[in-house]
Amino acid sequence: MIDLPYLADVCRTTDSKIVLLVVDGLGGVPHPDTGKSELETAYLPSLDRLAQHSAGGLTTPVMSGITPGSGPGHMALFGYDPVKYLMGRGVLEALGIDVALGAGDLAARGNLCTVDSSGNITDRRAGRIPSAESAPLVEMLNQIDVPGLEVEALPVQDYRFVLVLRGEGLDDKISETDPQMTGIAPLEARALDKGSERAAKAVRAFIAAAKETLGGREYANMAMLRGFSLLPDLPDFGASYQLTPGAVAAYPMYRGIAKVVGMKVIPTGMTFHEEMDTLEEHFDEHDFFFLHYKPSDSAGEDGDFQAKVKTLEALDDCIDRLVAMQPDVLVVAGDHSTPALLAAHSWHPVPMMISSEWTVGENMGSFDERACAQGSLGRIPATELMLLAMAHAGKLLKYGP
Amino acid sequence: MIDLPYLADVCRTTDSKIVLLVVDGLGGVPHPDTGKSELETAYLPSLDRLAQHSAGGLTTPVMSGITPGSGPGHMALFGYDPVKYLMGRGVLEALGIDVALGAGDLAARGNLCTVDSSGNITDRRAGRIPSAESAPLVEMLNQIDVPGLEVEALPVQDYRFVLVLRGEGLDDKISETDPQMTGIAPLEARALDKGSERAAKAVRAFIAAAKETLGGREYANMAMLRGFSLLPDLPDFGASYQLTPGAVAAYPMYRGIAKVVGMKVIPTGMTFHEEMDTLEEHFDEHDFFFLHYKPSDSAGEDGDFQAKVKTLEALDDCIDRLVAMQPDVLVVAGDHSTPALLAAHSWHPVPMMISSEWTVGENMGSFDERACAQGSLGRIPATELMLLAMAHAGKLLKYGP
Repeated sequence: MIDLPYLADVCRTTDSKIVLLVVDGLGGVPHPDTGKSELETAYLPSLDRLAQHSAGGLTTPVMSGITPGSGPGHMALFGYDPVKYLMGRGVLEALGIDVALGAGDLAARGNLCTVDSSGNITDRRAGRIPSAESAPLVEMLNQIDVPGLEVEALPVQDYRFVLVLRGEGLDDKISETDPQMTGIAPLEARALDKGSERAAKAVRAFIAAAKETLGGREYANMAMLRGFSLLPDLPDFGASYQLTPGAVAAYPMYRGIAKVVGMKVIPTGMTFHEEMDTLEEHFDEHDFFFLHYKPSDSAGEDGDFQAKVKTLEALDDCIDRLVAMQPDVLVVAGDHSTPALLAAHSWHPVPMMISSEWTVGENMGSFDERACAQGSLGRIPATELMLLAMAHAGKLLKYGP
Repeated sequence: MIDLPYLADVCRTTDSKIVLLVVDGLGGVPHPDTGKSELETAYLPSLDRLAQHSAGGLTTPVMSGITPGSGPGHMALFGYDPVKYLMGRGVLEALGIDVALGAGDLAARGNLCTVDSSGNITDRRAGRIPSAESAPLVEMLNQIDVPGLEVEALPVQDYRFVLVLRGEGLDDKISETDPQMTGIAPLEARALDKGSERAAKAVRAFIAAAKETLGGREYANMAMLRGFSLLPDLPDFGASYQLTPGAVAAYPMYRGIAKVVGMKVIPTGMTFHEEMDTLEEHFDEHDFFFLHYKPSDSAGEDGDFQAKVKTLEALDDCIDRLVAMQPDVLVVAGDHSTPALLAAHSWHPVPMMISSEWTVGENMGSFDERACAQGSLGRIPATELMLLAMAHAGKLLKYGP
């Protein structure tokens, strides 16, 4: 949680409602042919109208120049120091398939792979074995027994699975078994510090059993593990801000992140229209909503500038409906930028705006990178955005006498 | 180094090249007659053209209102917390005359001074004795023997010299012997903490020997020491960013700073044209270059507005040649501002711009304080500039999954 002593003392519960709309991969960069970014290219009458009555700015998710993953990007928006509360790959993969992770649970990302008769890797992804074929194999791994621990192996997709080990005294400083190359044998899991020895031993036992279990097969006959990670000890979002938060997100990873910070995850469908239905139905039940919009990031990652423009326009079509629910504070923000020209997450600061009773506009005619760069909120760490949302909702008392 | 855990994990070595051009004392303030700063007054067609394709902003070297010396100004640009890695006057003076300083070496700034027959100071600078006359005296001090330690006394200029003590267990919490006034005797060097007692005793022994050595003279018959300092334990620049850095700087102090952070210092001449020759000749050998331009600071310190304008125009004449070398990322930045109207370093934020494949311009028509204040990079701590340079060079992986 944001490093502000006495935060909970100055937060107060009121009837006002905050909606934090996170547009995944929101920010972009100008297309060289037009000099306009995706946001500047898209026809966004509703977002632009909202911008005309909002205060705007740019958020820095982690630090100048640093490209955040989805985990740090969201944690920062929720007010958590994204470095202090960095979640490892194993944890995020587990959250991405709705695994209920608790404090002290050790998670790892697994690959089914293919080894030859000498045990050397010939295919790190087991020929990208389809889910229908891999799921029964992962279920066999799920039956593996490691004395003193609970073992859970769960399929993700194709050759990917998640391993969760539960028990006392597990730590995550364990070397990866995936050598990230073929022609050699998988590496042995080694403890990288004293506290991780028990966990490393358990991992070796699991791998030995996996070899035995899958060993008779021609391909997908071995398992590799990496991204060992424990869920960090996370302060509760609702208790920190004195909110009763609800999360509406179509994609499992974002539901997972919301859940581990203590938000109530409200079941919803796979489209944003369904998310909006869910929000409407439950609008009376919470004073804070995290609402997640995924398509903009996917299109950006695909490197498809026009497709990203279209996802933003599709989002715009829903904004009036969102405004009609009359949240006291509507925040439109992004977890990071995903410029189509990079076809990847990027380090660029992310546009954001806050609309509330206390914003009357500031000559920001549109919602895009350039307009927000001139906004009165300036360029702020993403971790401070929640405080601004709280302030605009009348939920923050005076700090100090 | 910048306080970002796992930094080295996200840096990757690539073929791309970064040139960090540090224009010493770059920023200025408007002349009251014209309302234009030195940068705004100068005719800078090449820098302005570069600005039109760059992303711009302002750097804060240390903190709002804080005027940095050359040490903190450069350390911040290299990504080192300028407060945590503050180098004392002794260390900087030593670096300024190309002394090879190692960890644990104690350096001090020395003055030859004149005392009367009672031992009271009559001239703190020994009549500004010229170098030709002072050098043999400093060489006599260099012959002084302090048991158990290596003593090195080296001339700087006129009455100034540097003392370096090498040996085990030296610390730098030692009171200065220069009382900064005349009419009293030089002060005794006292240990200000327990750890510095051995060093203080050595300093007293050196001073006693210096008194003996010079005592027969009419003037320049005593030595005073201040600015006792140890080289801080500096993380290696290249290892931190996974770079093979080269430094091209005409002036010794900047070479010295580059050297102590682990850059390869490439021998060069005294003019910027010679620096450019050196850069061209060695352009294939490094993936990062620190290139230093000094004249702008000197003119600013002289308080000569027009002269500073001319130094900026002279720099501009070299920019096309620099661009022609085709660095993947060209950063133009300053270690601090040196407004001619102040005739000194100042606290003002410093213009900077980054040109790369990923910058397409942002309506910044020129390179100056006002244009950069409107740039998309915003106002950032100077310590984050390297991360932006790395990001624009494709040398930073995603942070967190």
